[in-house]
Amino acid sequence: MKRLMNIAAGALFAAALALPGGALAQEGKATIGVSIPSATHGWTGGVNFHAQQAIDELKAAYPDLTFVLATAGDPGKQVSDIEDMMATRNIDALVVLPFESDPLTGPVKRVADAGKFVTVVDRGLSQPGIQDLYVAGDNTAFGRVAGDYFKEKMPDGGKIVVLRGIPTTIDNERVEAFQKAIEGSNIEIEGMEHGDWNRDKAFEVMQDFLSKYAEIDAVWASDDDMALGVIEAIKQAGREGDMWVLGGAGMKQMIEKVQAGDKMVPADVTYPPSMIATAIRLTADRFVSKAPMAGRFVIDSVLVTPENAKEHYFPDSPF
Amino acid sequence: MKRLMNIAAGALFAAALALPGGALAQEGKATIGVSIPSATHGWTGGVNFHAQQAIDELKAAYPDLTFVLATAGDPGKQVSDIEDMMATRNIDALVVLPFESDPLTGPVKRVADAGKFVTVVDRGLSQPGIQDLYVAGDNTAFGRVAGDYFKEKMPDGGKIVVLRGIPTTIDNERVEAFQKAIEGSNIEIEGMEHGDWNRDKAFEVMQDFLSKYAEIDAVWASDDDMALGVIEAIKQAGREGDMWVLGGAGMKQMIEKVQAGDKMVPADVTYPPSMIATAIRLTADRFVSKAPMAGRFVIDSVLVTPENAKEHYFPDSPF
Repeated sequence: MKRLMNIAAGALFAAALALPGGALAQEGKATIGVSIPSATHGWTGGVNFHAQQAIDELKAAYPDLTFVLATAGDPGKQVSDIEDMMATRNIDALVVLPFESDPLTGPVKRVADAGKFVTVVDRGLSQPGIQDLYVAGDNTAFGRVAGDYFKEKMPDGGKIVVLRGIPTTIDNERVEAFQKAIEGSNIEIEGMEHGDWNRDKAFEVMQDFLSKYAEIDAVWASDDDMALGVIEAIKQAGREGDMWVLGGAGMKQMIEKVQAGDKMVPADVTYPPSMIATAIRLTADRFVSKAPMAGRFVIDSVLVTPENAKEHYFPDSPF
Repeated sequence: MKRLMNIAAGALFAAALALPGGALAQEGKATIGVSIPSATHGWTGGVNFHAQQAIDELKAAYPDLTFVLATAGDPGKQVSDIEDMMATRNIDALVVLPFESDPLTGPVKRVADAGKFVTVVDRGLSQPGIQDLYVAGDNTAFGRVAGDYFKEKMPDGGKIVVLRGIPTTIDNERVEAFQKAIEGSNIEIEGMEHGDWNRDKAFEVMQDFLSKYAEIDAVWASDDDMALGVIEAIKQAGREGDMWVLGGAGMKQMIEKVQAGDKMVPADVTYPPSMIATAIRLTADRFVSKAPMAGRFVIDSVLVTPENAKEHYFPDSPF
């Protein structure tokens, strides 16, 4: 059966490639390098899962595409992964989620200068205009969708506390959009502190909020890792009946709670690690079609509720 | 062979769909409606060609996807096309390039309200937030790429004339970006008039420029249809050795001139009708994978030179 599939899929692929002009690398064959951070925390664990998933699907649909996947625990390793892909694998395209912007900018620029198609995901490089395609999350939508949900869920207003991430432009964009979305409501932000997208830090910040404020109706934890720390603090204080928590990202444990109708976790907001799959698919499309794929794709943040939770649930993913 | 291909492709498709969660419509089957203006002028002729091309390629790669393509010569026909797709074809998604924004906004909103995935291409609707995915050209890049080319091609400066399109925000964005790009150069814009993206109008405007200005080193026609009118006027005036012309869009006749090394048409800037193919492929990806496809994709404008002209040349397209 395997051989049969290969033959027929080869024929299909050839049919799909019977395009005029023939800009495709080496008669439709192409090698795509994918360089991502290793699964050092939850979200990058999701990135690893979805990258492999997309590669497996695309290899089945287009057997003439070859993928080289490398994961790096630090920027230095990622730079040498990319140099390796150029030196020994002769890649036609690179999909990269940079570990950090600065150390990756030069090496990725060299790939672009060599005429390869370059796709950058989520974290931009330090110099504009290097990549052909940029795929990123939408931090403004992330904050706005969260704020809209608070407004809808609290039509008469209420008292909330907010945990912020690491001080960055990303965090500023999210928080500003959230504040703008709840403008004109009677929702009052009692306290707002940085939990640095860290579960333990968020636990401590929430303990502090709980001891300071007798009335808290809801928490914008703004991140699923922080939400888990917040929930633990609320449980230890025995106040789990008093308030609900909105995280963000789309972590598996949180989606499970939403799906189960957990009163404390009525919803979540996506900032999906599966954006790596979008980036890999669009990069592959660059070689299996002549549809333009260079540009900038900003992926929506979506509200996850019990109704659509199934769509955002990946039981085999670590995240 | 046909049957063999169907069986094997079906198996491949099933493999590709062996995803957890199963948010896919009816076990991976999906019907995608595509509603576009008929080929009333050059650019929409290209849209028709590339829509059919993308559908043929995707049907070969994913036989469980069904496509319904409708072309409309006026907004009323487009509205009834879309209503038909809902009433009789039970579409799961709609890809629409609106003939006009206002009359299509309500009908497309009803499709979105019915829970279908909606992709809007190029021309936005009159109300924000209706579509799941927006695929559009980049008018700022279109003007900037053109301006950068003038600067590079005229390092010592020179005298140019500019033809603008129909007075719209699109045209303003393009012209502002062009002017910003040539700032600080010695390029002087002698005359700037609206040619309304129309060949005959551009011919008249250019005749006027030619009688007014004894020295013209280059023309930013800013559109391939206008460029053809401009070139005709220059030829009739017998001044074809004096100046070169930059159009825009990626029309076949213009790409042919670039490829042939025509001194009068050294380059072109894309605003590709093939963006419809990008939109259809991303919408299909929504059903054959769980990679997020909702968001906003702004497609780059690219400089076409003899080196890369082949990539942008579609001999079978009317445009």
